[in-house]
This record gives sequence, structure tokens and C-alpha cells, in this order.
Amino acid sequence: MDFENVDPIIHAALREDMPNGDITSESIISAKSQSEAIFLSREDGILAGIEVARRVFELIDSRIAFEKHLKDGKLFQKGTTLAKVQGPTVSILKGERTALNFLQRLSGIATTTRKYVDALAGTKTKILDTRKTTPGLRVLEKYAVRMGGGQNHRLNLSEMVLIKDNHLLHLKSIKEAVLKAREKVRPGIKIEVEVTNLAEAQEAVQAGVDMIMLDNMSLERMKEVVDWLRRKIPVEVSGAVGLEDIVSIASLGVDFISVGSLTHSYRSVDIALEFMSE
Amino acid sequence: MDFENVDPIIHAALREDMPNGDITSESIISAKSQSEAIFLSREDGILAGIEVARRVFELIDSRIAFEKHLKDGKLFQKGTTLAKVQGPTVSILKGERTALNFLQRLSGIATTTRKYVDALAGTKTKILDTRKTTPGLRVLEKYAVRMGGGQNHRLNLSEMVLIKDNHLLHLKSIKEAVLKAREKVRPGIKIEVEVTNLAEAQEAVQAGVDMIMLDNMSLERMKEVVDWLRRKIPVEVSGAVGLEDIVSIASLGVDFISVGSLTHSYRSVDIALEFMSE
Amino acid sequence: MDFENVDPIIHAALREDMPNGDITSESIISAKSQSEAIFLSREDGILAGIEVARRVFELIDSRIAFEKHLKDGKLFQKGTTLAKVQGPTVSILKGERTALNFLQRLSGIATTTRKYVDALAGTKTKILDTRKTTPGLRVLEKYAVRMGGGQNHRLNLSEMVLIKDNHLLHLKSIKEAVLKAREKVRPGIKIEVEVTNLAEAQEAVQAGVDMIMLDNMSLERMKEVVDWLRRKIPVEVSGAVGLEDIVSIASLGVDFISVGSLTHSYRSVDIALEFMSE
Amino acid sequence: MDFENVDPIIHAALREDMPNGDITSESIISAKSQSEAIFLSREDGILAGIEVARRVFELIDSRIAFEKHLKDGKLFQKGTTLAKVQGPTVSILKGERTALNFLQRLSGIATTTRKYVDALAGTKTKILDTRKTTPGLRVLEKYAVRMGGGQNHRLNLSEMVLIKDNHLLHLKSIKEAVLKAREKVRPGIKIEVEVTNLAEAQEAVQAGVDMIMLDNMSLERMKEVVDWLRRKIPVEVSGAVGLEDIVSIASLGVDFISVGSLTHSYRSVDIALEFMSE
Amino acid sequence: MDFENVDPIIHAALREDMPNGDITSESIISAKSQSEAIFLSREDGILAGIEVARRVFELIDSRIAFEKHLKDGKLFQKGTTLAKVQGPTVSILKGERTALNFLQRLSGIATTTRKYVDALAGTKTKILDTRKTTPGLRVLEKYAVRMGGGQNHRLNLSEMVLIKDNHLLHLKSIKEAVLKAREKVRPGIKIEVEVTNLAEAQEAVQAGVDMIMLDNMSLERMKEVVDWLRRKIPVEVSGAVGLEDIVSIASLGVDFISVGSLTHSYRSVDIALEFMSE
Amino acid sequence: MDFENVDPIIHAALREDMPNGDITSESIISAKSQSEAIFLSREDGILAGIEVARRVFELIDSRIAFEKHLKDGKLFQKGTTLAKVQGPTVSILKGERTALNFLQRLSGIATTTRKYVDALAGTKTKILDTRKTTPGLRVLEKYAVRMGGGQNHRLNLSEMVLIKDNHLLHLKSIKEAVLKAREKVRPGIKIEVEVTNLAEAQEAVQAGVDMIMLDNMSLERMKEVVDWLRRKIPVEVSGAVGLEDIVSIASLGVDFISVGSLTHSYRSVDIALEFMSE
Repeated sequence: MDFENVDPIIHAALREDMPNGDITSESIISAKSQSEAIFLSREDGILAGIEVARRVFELIDSRIAFEKHLKDGKLFQKGTTLAKVQGPTVSILKGERTALNFLQRLSGIATTTRKYVDALAGTKTKILDTRKTTPGLRVLEKYAVRMGGGQNHRLNLSEMVLIKDNHLLHLKSIKEAVLKAREKVRPGIKIEVEVTNLAEAQEAVQAGVDMIMLDNMSLERMKEVVDWLRRKIPVEVSGAVGLEDIVSIASLGVDFISVGSLTHSYRSVDIALEFMSE
Repeated sequence: MDFENVDPIIHAALREDMPNGDITSESIISAKSQSEAIFLSREDGILAGIEVARRVFELIDSRIAFEKHLKDGKLFQKGTTLAKVQGPTVSILKGERTALNFLQRLSGIATTTRKYVDALAGTKTKILDTRKTTPGLRVLEKYAVRMGGGQNHRLNLSEMVLIKDNHLLHLKSIKEAVLKAREKVRPGIKIEVEVTNLAEAQEAVQAGVDMIMLDNMSLERMKEVVDWLRRKIPVEVSGAVGLEDIVSIASLGVDFISVGSLTHSYRSVDIALEFMSE
Repeated sequence: MDFENVDPIIHAALREDMPNGDITSESIISAKSQSEAIFLSREDGILAGIEVARRVFELIDSRIAFEKHLKDGKLFQKGTTLAKVQGPTVSILKGERTALNFLQRLSGIATTTRKYVDALAGTKTKILDTRKTTPGLRVLEKYAVRMGGGQNHRLNLSEMVLIKDNHLLHLKSIKEAVLKAREKVRPGIKIEVEVTNLAEAQEAVQAGVDMIMLDNMSLERMKEVVDWLRRKIPVEVSGAVGLEDIVSIASLGVDFISVGSLTHSYRSVDIALEFMSE
Repeated sequence: MDFENVDPIIHAALREDMPNGDITSESIISAKSQSEAIFLSREDGILAGIEVARRVFELIDSRIAFEKHLKDGKLFQKGTTLAKVQGPTVSILKGERTALNFLQRLSGIATTTRKYVDALAGTKTKILDTRKTTPGLRVLEKYAVRMGGGQNHRLNLSEMVLIKDNHLLHLKSIKEAVLKAREKVRPGIKIEVEVTNLAEAQEAVQAGVDMIMLDNMSLERMKEVVDWLRRKIPVEVSGAVGLEDIVSIASLGVDFISVGSLTHSYRSVDIALEFMSE
Repeated sequence: MDFENVDPIIHAALREDMPNGDITSESIISAKSQSEAIFLSREDGILAGIEVARRVFELIDSRIAFEKHLKDGKLFQKGTTLAKVQGPTVSILKGERTALNFLQRLSGIATTTRKYVDALAGTKTKILDTRKTTPGLRVLEKYAVRMGGGQNHRLNLSEMVLIKDNHLLHLKSIKEAVLKAREKVRPGIKIEVEVTNLAEAQEAVQAGVDMIMLDNMSLERMKEVVDWLRRKIPVEVSGAVGLEDIVSIASLGVDFISVGSLTHSYRSVDIALEFMSE
Repeated sequence: MDFENVDPIIHAALREDMPNGDITSESIISAKSQSEAIFLSREDGILAGIEVARRVFELIDSRIAFEKHLKDGKLFQKGTTLAKVQGPTVSILKGERTALNFLQRLSGIATTTRKYVDALAGTKTKILDTRKTTPGLRVLEKYAVRMGGGQNHRLNLSEMVLIKDNHLLHLKSIKEAVLKAREKVRPGIKIEVEVTNLAEAQEAVQAGVDMIMLDNMSLERMKEVVDWLRRKIPVEVSGAVGLEDIVSIASLGVDFISVGSLTHSYRSVDIALEFMSE
């Protein structure tokens, strides 16, 4: 977690929730009141974002002590104390919702990712995320995917060349696309191409791509390509794939399966902040 | 949609996706290539965020023409053209993912909200959202709730007093809490209290609250309170409520049901950008 | 005082006064020179902004010790030591003018507010401020009003509905305006209407407003309305009211008198920074 | 008026007044409603800030037409139309208060400045402002002083050396202070010293200062110094000077009188926005 | 040139040069004065930054017309008109120095780069830049390198793995370093290692690196490595290399030579802005 | 060094080099690894920017200890340890390039400046810089000039009036230009004029300028002007002057020679970061 990058996101969240303070807590709770409260899981899951939660409280009030009971990436069961905060009651109440908004979402992503990763246990296939992340939260959501055991696909459009169908529409051939890219981009950049059948895969490999993506193919077609491709360069399978499909795809020996729903649709994990009785 | 507020969010999303440009499109597609593409729904839903999508393209390249075919809040069926973009191919490709990331999420929230709203058709009960929104996107997500037919609860902690269980733990009584709040806050601010039974509701009303929230009560207890409360001040029901529960709750005559899952867990609606063949 | 909100204002003030340092102090005073200086009042007043003054010095040089002798909201007489600063001479000189610019203005507002509040001693009527504040300093000026014993009217246009004459020009009736507002705004928002006679007041109350404002009425008209209104909802009197008028208005039993001149026109209180002889 | 500098100030003012829109105007006035309104003076004054008012509306809604009837620096009488705005009613209402907050304050400063300037008509003495400006608004307030016919003293601590009593406390002599400054600062920088009697003035001039400030002296002492000084370098009189004193000071032949109250204490000029009946 | 990225750099440059306007031009030249001026080369060179110069004027005053006579990347001789500006004299004078500061530096980099590129004419070896760029101007300086015919090495530390001597000090072997990197980084990332002899090069290739860097080797050692390496992966030569050395290095058949001095030390090309007589 | 001003420049440099971390160091070096490294000069020079280097590491990781062995402005010889850093290896590696990019450039400017200053030893003539600085780095580059023993000319266009040939083209006479400037600008501002012969110099002095600049004159012409001018006001010589010319110019008795190449063209001094063996 690189907090220089995350601070602006947390500040934005706090400003959005408290443009002019928390008028409830500030008006009815004494500034001197001290409390202790715990983050308690109300269902099973994989933890992600505990340091973001800590940072939320640090940015609100440096007098709050935050004690982490579990590390990101760990499995927890319903009823687990994930962390403890101690300090001025008003400050804890100000951070409660924002800390939970981060923690519940990121743990939700990690928890879902883990299900995909577990389904592939025993295979060499890895789960990748996509660029279908929430605007403004990509760094955090991709971090949550890693905490769930997944790997990250490219961070952004500046980091890797990925030639997709919407690009190929405007070019004569895969070969032309790949050669143009190779000529123009920095030598340190990898090139991946999306293909839909064996002929295209062969054209791409001959043009010198570093990685290949199979998009929305049938298992048979995939097998054909993978059998020919394997050993040469890594192969990724993409497209609307559910938990049920990925085991059979993995059995073909693909290197990566990318899953958009890890980040484009997710359930928050139910975590609560409970105050200790005094 | 207030674009002064939304522009920084879009800029952040674009910077996050293109810190140094789109090396794929820029290296293989001619800067002179022009295209036309449509936003096409791949499932049914309620539209939200079409103006955000438009703004994404405007901020990338003012030469892109964006023609809206449907307005936010409208129902669409699978296969509907929601909008058309026309302009430099490279610029359209740069905005594709970011525009979809907004449009799919916001439409997802609107679509889910509409299901709750439809379930209450014929009653006077209204669906409210909560502060369980994605950090940084609250304004947009609350907008999507309105597009789905819901109403917004308070925007933030500075706008309304809402005294919850975590506050009451630190005070002697509901009465003390309400009186303190009334004395301290600006006269234009409303006060709501969360209660768990009839006695508390009565104490709150006598202390002069403007609105009351019933948290995690049984239907019987709710009925008791609502029967006594009705006609005096608005009553809101909160707590983990699914689609199945809300009809029976509404039948008690409550004014509002607030639903956290509208924004804390959601499915993106499947919308694609399809290029027209030339 | 919420310093996350105030820091950007102080930084802007310091940048404006020292875009490239304090060339006088830096060129003629040794970087090793240490001093002690006091904030000394040169006339009577009510203190406001002492923590802002402290923060000015903290942001310039963390080695400066700032010792507060009086708290905001307290009355001081001419010749009172309000605070003491100790530290590098150059840094104290850099902050002198900016600290005084805040302290003199905010204390000026608090001092004037106190005169209005004192004039109403023994009545139940409270002094409110308005939105006629200095651009960029609203949060601080409204804070100063509270330190003078006043209460704050709405912070901004997003927090409360206040329907004024310039709105009513565009609507058929007060009733239409109030009903439209109630239908559109969040349930946690209060609605106030400006009225000019008893009939309008009655129309507003029947439409369900939460508060009423009497604008530029004669005492007789006000009395008529207040007599009818009292007990139902709070009533505010606005318009160009001087110290001399407010006692007779308060005697009518109104809840609030709002006074624009608290913040739109004010005298700085004369406070100086005096260095102790070494 | 340099609008790149002023835009951030206006944006801050608008954000402060509308963090989430104008819920009154937006909920009760049709987005299609068009209006015409005039800025009308309710007392005599000197105009300053009319272009800031124009810019407020431009930044809110580019569809608003703003027609200026008078230029900054011009005298107006009660009842004068200063400008006309035309456009969407909701947008005009959103900008009303912010535009007036700038225009009333800046015109207040210009109006007071003009009184001082007029008092000195026929003399060669000029009115200067000070650094006692409102934090964040220095550029605008100094502009208003110019519109009132005054001249600006140094903009900030980086632009000119001004050695005052609080500096001299830490040095052996005026001579030492001036020589140190001359040695350290850029050759393009002027040096001014504050003196309290003839001997100090002579020491300063011999040390080579470019300008001299007489602080809180009696008329006799001033005369002594001015008589000796005149013809050599410009002389400025500072200290708490009211309108009544400045004529006798000017008659001594000083070049400048600086007046802190131009900006540290001021009355807003009463200007209103009046909607035209339709 | 991506102007969204460049605007903040230009704004910073203009703020730094005109915190409070251009007091010379504004005080002596009429706001109505119009002029025409040309950018004239006073020595030969390669153009880079002409669009940055255009943007400087656009951001100062949209009424300035800027007509480009030559495109970036083109060779010009002494006495060539590179561009013409036409518009308000004051605005042209405000932008003169800032436009030249960009244009002279970037053309300086392009001109030097071209010398290296020309020296390698007829070979397949390409000139690369490094991360030794001016803080804040990397995007522009790397653009200038491309305009001079060079290629860009990695933009930053986030884009590519480059294992150098300072890394290897902390690891057991090149092999360990490469395997660790491959395991941890995203699959779209390339890995390069710096080696100092043939054995290290062989270890690196066996560990699966994508590119190899020869640092400060003698020609003989380089030849040994290149002979063994060629045909497998690209090879880069780095270290303090002058124009005289690169031809012999290129003759070995290396793919890239990276040259730090392209950006860490450079001469501005002499370009002037000349006003046309009226 | 004023770090409030410098921090944004360092942050920009770090963001530019690490938009998403240092993927090499983070993936292969243990987060627990600690190191010690020294900044070692590889050639002679004058130090400038050592506190900027310190600040780079402070902003990356507060656990890094930075021990300065030499102060800015000091001469060092090849092989000198300039500073030592100690702390987490990964954090040191992250800051290495950015710290060097600042340190090498600023020391390069100081080193060149010192050559000019040394050439003038024994004369009273001082070396001045110009506004030909790298966009965004003016404050730092002008600081480096001072460390090399030079003096700074005006910081920016807002601080001093300097009337040059491109201004005079638009005016009737030097006299008109000077009088206009004197009338319009603040009294604390100095005025300098660029002249090309004795007659112009005389006109300027009679109009009351504070300083005069001789641009591109022959030694004979300069002598004529200097002989007449001396004793009245300071005189500066500008234009393309190399080390060889300045001694003869200084011998004429001019006060300042301004040299653009100090900042528009420079060599980085070779400084390296070397890790200590463990």
C-alpha cells in the first residue's frame, strides 16, 4: 500500500462525507469522551483494506490508536475482531462510515477473487483482473484482487499494448497491427493481441507478440489454439466467464483467465464497528 | 448533473487509465481515422450516467460528437442503442472503457433501485439510499438512485442530525441527545433519531425530533410504533431489508425504507461500445 | 475549529504575502536570532481566531511555541496579553501580519456580534448571521459569529431551502413553491419562506413550512404575524436592522433576528504584536 | 483584472456557497425559466468589481449574458443600474449572493478610498494601502483601492524591503540594517525604512534608502523631517490616520499617506439584484 | 503532444514568471496595441516544442494567432522563421520568455539527439534516452528526444523492470533477481538486467529476461557478449558514451545505445522573438 | 531553501518517476533490507541542492537518515563524499535518480557560475543571472546561482520594471516609457532600461531610471556610457558574453554582467550514489 497515492482518495471521501463536520457527533458527544470500538465481521471473507481503514482514522485524528488483529489477504470467519480503535469518541464516529465503505468493498473484491482462485487450485492457471474498475479506485481494487490471490492485468492504457477487436476493425491485418505497434512503442513494452481462432493466433505469434488473448471462444476452439500455442508465449482467456466455466478452461492449460466481474460487480462484505461498553 | 462537480472525478478516472496516453491506439491507428460507434445494451435496465459518458468524451476530445438516444431514468431493453459517438477513432477508443465504467455502474444502481421502487408501487412508501456509497462517487451514486425512482437520504454528516445507537451509547437518554443537538445546531437543521421500540419512539417525539428511524425491528414492533407515530412525523425503516421484506413493511404505512445494498453491492449492467462497420 | 478546512485558507494567505519569502527579515536578521513577542489588545473586544493565529505560526515554522492566554469567545480589555509566541525571530516576523489579519477581523466580527447579543439579554430572541460573508472565509466568519454569542443561519445554498422574494416572482403562489420544494428535496431538509404580511404567513404555514422569515416589515405587521404564528414554528426577522431596532423587534417574541452587517461590514479590532526587549 | 488569478477565488466562493447545488432554486424553479435582472445601487458609491461579478455568472453558466452599464472606478448615485444579467433564472439565482458579496465589498473599499483621495485634491500627496488586507483577497482589495484613486504599497513581503520597528529591535542601528539589506537583496529591489525622528531619517538617507516612512509622529516632528528630506527621496506617513488628519499631513508636502483602514475595516456598499417583471 | 499533460507545466511556468502580471508591459504599452512577431532561429538546429510555444500564447490570451512555419522534428538553418504570432502586444510580450524557455531547451535536446542519430546512420542501432531528465519536464524532454530521431527508454520506475548493479548488491544472483521479479510483477511487464560480462549475460538469458544492458564494458567484452547474445533478445549499451564512441559500439551490432547527456546536459538553441516593424 | 515552495516540485518529480511505485525494487528487494549509501563526486565542482536531495528522501520515507558532509556553496574535489543516506534499501533506491537529477543539475549551475565569479575576482563587478531558467525550476536555479557566488536579477515580470528593445518599439521615446512606468507602478518598484548608446543612456537617466542595461554594445561604446554614467546609478551589461569577454567588460567598471547561459545551457556535475558493502 503506497499511502502517498491513497491519501488523496481518503481525503476526497472524508470531504464528501464531512464538508462541514459531523454535526451530530459534535453537538451531542463531549469532546473529552474516549471510546474503544472493534471492527467485527458479520460473515466469512478475505480481508483487504485494513491499512486504508487505519489511515482514515489517522487522517481524522492522530490521537486515535488503531490496532490491527488480522493482515490483508487473510481469511476470517463471521464474528472475528479484525481491528480495534481507541481514542476520542467523536473522531471515531466521524471515521466509522468512511472506513467501513473502503473495508467492506475491498474485502468484497478479495473474497470473490479468492473463490475463483480456489476453484483453480491444483492448476497452473492464474486469475487476472481487468480495467473494469470503479473510477478513481483502480489502485485499491487491483490491490484487493492481489489480496484475494489474483494477479493484476495491465494497470492502464499507458503500460502495455493490448490490441483488441475494436482496434483491428481499423487495420488490414493482425500482422500490420503488431508490426506498427512494435515500431512505435518503447522497447520495454509488451504487446498482446486478442484473437478469435487458430489462424489469427498463428498470425499474431509470427508477428512477434508477447502474449495472446482468446476472446469468447468455445472450449474446442480454445483447445486448438492452446495446443498449438503452448510453450511459446503466455495465453489468456477473457470474456464473460463464471466460476463454473473456469475449471474446464484451466484444464486446457491456459496461463491466465481474466474476470471482469471481480471489480465491475461485487458484494460488500458485512463488517461492523461495535463500541465496547464502558 | 452538475458538471463542475463531476469533472474532477472524470479527470481522475482518465488520469488513472492514461497516465501517459493510450499506447495501443496511438501507435497503430491513424490520427486521421474517423469512426462511429454506438452504446448498445446487452440486457434490460434503467439508464443512468449518459451525460457522464458524454462528458468523458468531451473532456478527451472536443471533436467527438455524442448523440444521446435515451434519457437517464428511462427503461431500456436488451439491444437498445443508448447513444452514438462519432469522431476521431483514437479518441473514441481512449474514452471507451472509462465511459463504460461509469455508465454500467450507475445504470446498475438505477436498475436495482427501480426494482425496489416497483415493488412498492401503489403504496406511499418511498425508497431511500444511505451513506454506504463508493468513496469519491457519492454524488453520482445518489444521482443514480434518483434515476431509479428512489429518494436520497442525507448527503453527508454535515447536513442533518441523525442520532444512532453508536451515539446513544455515550448519552444518558434519547431526550438528552435530542435537546443537546437542538441547542447546538443551526435552526435550519432537522433531527432524526434511531429507536428500537415504542418507548424510545415516544421519548424521541416528546423531545421534538423531526423524523424517526426504526432499526432492525420485528414487523410487530414496527407496527406498534408506526400506529402510534403516524400523522405526527415521518418514519423511516432501516436495517438489512431485501426486496421480499419491503412490501410487508410498506403495508404498515411507513414513509421511507432505506436500503444500503442499493449502493454498497451492485451489478454493472452489461452495455457495450460497438463500432459501425465503415 | 477544523484545521483541515482552515489550512488551505492559511496557506493561500501566506503564499499571497510571501510568494518568494520575506526579503526584509531574511536579509537583515540572523537566522539564529530568537525572540519572544505578545499579542496585545489595544482596545476592548471579544476574542475570535486565536487558534488560527497559532496555526499560522505552526505552518510557518514548527519551532515556534505559541501560548494562548485567552480562549475564543472571551471578553478582553485594552492592554490584555492574548497570547505569547516564542521562537526564531525571522519566522515570527513572517507570520506577524497574516496572524493579525485573521485575528483582528474575526475578533471584530465577534465583538460586533456580542453587542447585538447583549442588547437582547433577557429576551429569548437569538441573533443569526447571513450568507453575506467574505468570499473564501465563510467558515471562519460564521465561527466568529458563534464566538460572539450569535447563532449561524444556513451555511450555504445546499443545506436548507429558503424561498425568498426573488424566487416567488417566478411562481404562482407560496403554496406552490413550498409543495414543489417538499416534493423534490431530501426528507432531511427544512424549508423556510420569506413573507411580507399575515396572509402570506398563513399560506406558508398551511403549506407546511418549517420556519418563516419576515422581511422588511413594520413593527405592527410583524406583531400581527408573530401573534398568529407563535407556538407553531420558529419565526425570523430579517432586513436592514441596526442595534437600535432589535430590542423592540425582540419584544414581539420572535425567535431569531438575522443581521447581515455582522459580516458584510466590520471594523478590525486593534491588536498588535509586540516584541519583548531582550 | 487578471482572471487567471481571480478564477480560483471565485471557484472557492461558489464551492463554499453551493457544495451540492442550490436546492431551493433547483427544486422550485423550472430549468427552462429565463429572466432579466439588474444590479441596482441603493446608495452612492464608487464601483469596483463589476468584472468579478460578470465572471461569477460566466463560471456558473455560460448562457448568461452580462451587460455592464458602468466601469470600475466610476462614481454612481443611489438608484443607478450598474449592470444587467439575462439568462436561465436558476443560474442567475445561484450567482446572486456570491456576485454581490464581491461587488459590495470591493465597491465599499473603492468608495472609502475615494473619500481620502478627494480630501487630498489639490495636493501632490497620494493615498497608499497596506498589507492589512483580507486573507485570500489581497489582489482584489488592492485593485479596489486603485479604482478608488489610491495607489498600492508593496504587494507582499517578497517585493520590497521595508524595515520596521520590529526589525530594528534586533539590530544595532538603522545604518547596519540598510547596509545588510542592500548587500543581500537583488539589485532591483527598493529599500524603505520606518523612522521616528529627524536623526533616524538622516541616518537612513545616508545609508542609501530609497524611501522613508514616518510612523506615528507629531505634525511638528514630521515637518522637521520632511523639510530636511524633501527633494531627496519619497516620504510616506503611516499610522492610525483618519480623514480629518490627512489634510494637515499632506500640507507638509509628504509624498504618500498609507491608510490601513481602507482594507482592514470597511462597509459594504448597498447594491441589490432586482428581477425585472416579466 | 498531449496538452492535458502539458498545461499544468505551462501554467506553473507562467505563474512563476508572472505572479502578479508583467508590470513593465502593462504599465507602458497600450492594451489596444497590436503586433506581429516571428520566432527566428539564430543558429541551425532541429525543432522541438513549437506546439508548446503555441500553447503558452493560447493560455495567456486566446486572441493571439499563432502560425507555425515548421513542424517539430524538422531541421532548420540559421535565419529561419519558425512561427509567427499576431495579437495584443502586451500579451505577446508576456509569453515571449516562457515560450522561448521551452522552445530553446527542447530544440536543444532534439538537436543533440539528431547528432547521435546521424552518427549511426546506416546501422540498425538506435539511440535511447534515460531517466536523467529535468524534474517536472520528463514528458517534454522525452518527446524532444523522439523529435531528434531517438527512441525512449522506460518512462518511469513503474513501467518496466530494470535490475541494475545497485539492486544486485542486495541479492544472491542475477537468476534469483530475475525469478523474483517475474513472480511478482504483472505479466505484461518486461524485465531487463544490467550485466558486466558474458557469464552474467548468460545467467540473465537463462533466467528469462526480455532485454539486456551492458554497462561500462570495454569494446572487446561487449563484442563477446553481443556475439553470443545476438538473435536472442535485444541488447542495450549504456554508460558514459560520447559521439566518438558510439559508431564503434554500433558496429558490434547492438540494438540500442542509451545516452544520459541527451537530457542531463544540454545547450539551448538560440531562437529569438522579433517584432515586425509596424 | 524554503521547503514549502520546493515540496510541490519534488512531489511532481516523484510522481513522474513513480506513478505506481518502483516495480523493480519492490519486487526483488526485501522490505526489511537496510542499507547505507554515499553521494560521491566523480569530478570537481561547487555543491548546490544538497537540502533538496535530503528532502527527496524525507518525502519518500521518513525512516531514512540523511547526513550532509558538505554545505551548499562549497567547493568539492573528485572523490568527495557529499552526504550519506541510511535506511530501508527499497526507499533509498526509489529516491536515487530523483535526488541525483536535482543535485547534478543544481551543482552544474553553481559550478559554472563560480567560473564566471572567479574570473572577476579583484573587480567590483558582479555576475547576475537572467529569466532564461528551466520552466518550473526558477527558484531552485536562481538559488544555485547564488551558491556559485552570483547574484540574482529580478525573479519575475511582477517584481521590477525592465524596459527592453521589444518594448521601446511601441513607444515614442525612452523618456515616455520611463515616465509612463513611474506613473503607473507601485512606488516601491525599481525601473531599469536597456540602452544601446550614450544618448539613450542620458535620456534614461534624465527620465529618472534606477538602473541601466547596456545590450550588445562594443567595448568602446560601453566605455563611453560607463564613463558618463558611473557614480549616478548602477549599470548592467547583458548580451551573449562568454568567460573570455567578461574581464575586459568588468575593467570598464560596470556593476553587473548578466549571463543567460548560467541557466539556459549547462552540464550536470557527475555525482553518483554508491552503496556500501554490507
